[in-house]
Amino acid sequence: MKIVLIGSSGVIGGAVDAKLQTRHDIVRVSRNGGDFQVDIANPASILDLYKEVGKFDALVCTAGAVHFAPLDQLSPEQFEIGLRSKLMGQVNLVTFGLKHVRDGGSFTLTSGLTNDDPIPQGVSAALVNGALEGFVRGAAIELGRGLRINLVSPTVVEESVPLYGAFFRGTKPAPASEVALGYVKSVEGAQNGRVYRIGWSREGAS
Amino acid sequence: MKIVLIGSSGVIGGAVDAKLQTRHDIVRVSRNGGDFQVDIANPASILDLYKEVGKFDALVCTAGAVHFAPLDQLSPEQFEIGLRSKLMGQVNLVTFGLKHVRDGGSFTLTSGLTNDDPIPQGVSAALVNGALEGFVRGAAIELGRGLRINLVSPTVVEESVPLYGAFFRGTKPAPASEVALGYVKSVEGAQNGRVYRIGWSREGAS
Ligand SMILES: NC(=O)c1ccc[n+]([C@@H]2O[C@H](COP(=O)([O-])OP(=O)(O)OC[C@H]3O[C@@H](n4cnc5c(N)ncnc54)[C@H](OP(=O)(O)O)[C@@H]3O)[C@@H](O)[C@H]2O)c1
Ligand SMILES: NC(=O)c1ccc[n+]([C@@H]2O[C@H](COP(=O)([O-])OP(=O)(O)OC[C@H]3O[C@@H](n4cnc5c(N)ncnc54)[C@H](OP(=O)(O)O)[C@@H]3O)[C@@H](O)[C@H]2O)c1
Repeated sequence: MKIVLIGSSGVIGGAVDAKLQTRHDIVRVSRNGGDFQVDIANPASILDLYKEVGKFDALVCTAGAVHFAPLDQLSPEQFEIGLRSKLMGQVNLVTFGLKHVRDGGSFTLTSGLTNDDPIPQGVSAALVNGALEGFVRGAAIELGRGLRINLVSPTVVEESVPLYGAFFRGTKPAPASEVALGYVKSVEGAQNGRVYRIGWSREGAS
Repeated sequence: MKIVLIGSSGVIGGAVDAKLQTRHDIVRVSRNGGDFQVDIANPASILDLYKEVGKFDALVCTAGAVHFAPLDQLSPEQFEIGLRSKLMGQVNLVTFGLKHVRDGGSFTLTSGLTNDDPIPQGVSAALVNGALEGFVRGAAIELGRGLRINLVSPTVVEESVPLYGAFFRGTKPAPASEVALGYVKSVEGAQNGRVYRIGWSREGAS
């Protein structure tokens, strides 16, 4: 399969790359590195990317930013970061990508546990992650042509604990290699409209 | 209690008004009617509203638009309608309202079942409803001062079936008076960070 991997230079993207590259042709994309560059927060940049990469069988996105801040300090402009990048960046990758994905292909997006297991300063992340769940379930029933879409919702990644650990006290991390399994199941399996919660469960959270 | 009801002239808003007015002082707000007017899709209009209404004990929002269209026809501009109105309109009512709500007060927002029980043409609604779930759970743990926030997620309303029934074939409607109970429990109860699913259950849906 030809798999377009957005965020290939990241912690999760790198682990997904490692798992899929032995069996597939990976087109590596990130903001600054990789075979192609894109800024998913800019719709025109996504259109340009699709012109360059051509037809593909699977798109995996492990990119997207949100702003962390206390609720009473979060401005509309700060909410907008998550809406433009992690939310609509991934949504536009799907809606614009419909013309370029081959029949039977798939989209796999990335969220996170904060919408079910909230953390201080994480309200924008929770909003975006919840939106992605709704989007993926909604899109799954309308795709047609044998297309599929799934969402990977990882717990905090072990390799990221030095960076984000202070936000996730008491949350059990999972290694990026385990998180990557969700993407492998989505791309190489046959399920549709699923949320792969890696390293946590909704029952444990809420 | 002084309860600010945004969307008071609507199907759900009217039913909430009927249940709460016997025990409380209702400040009725809508786009065109009521005691005060607001366009929740416009942040400046929300700031103006809060200057006019002064301190309050509870805010209930039963207003907000989303665009319904097939996935392969939904443009970024059409997604933007839901992001600006039903999503960020309600989010801004909360974040801007923190300065005006009295200690021990509450916010009650409105979503809908489509993020868990998706319908054709409902992908933007599903995205927005999922985002509201994440936001409410995230905000609930950060409010402080005895403040609370909950979400009412109604099934399709019986009185709205003539309008929306074609989108919700096979979905059991509930009368607006039953949906209104969720708002009453949120405002007059003591729970926080809850999603009141009225007329449907997540187990039945997914
Ligand atoms: N790490 C965790 O613990 C964790 C847990 C749950 C969820 N997540 C989510 O998983 C995703 C990836 O996390 P990560 O830790 O792997 O991130 P990361 O190590 O910072 O890597 C991010 C990757 O995405 C690319 N990228 C960032 N912004 C972009 C943009 N606007 N357009 C295109 N590419 C962009 C980066 O490219 P450049 O390097 O070229 O800038 C990089 O390849 C995020 O959405 C995050 O919220 C992470
Ligand atoms: N009805 C259903 O079956 C159903 C089911 C699940 C969820 N919901 C959700 O519940 C909410 C209310 O639904 P409804 O059927 O009661 O709606 P509705 O009858 O159309 O009433 C909407 C109310 O909101 C006000 N409003 C609309 N846009 C506004 C804006 N931008 N700023 C301020 N006020 C605005 C309207 O004011 P004006 O009359 O002055 O314009 C009216 O008071 C919506 O978010 C809907 O998605 C509805």
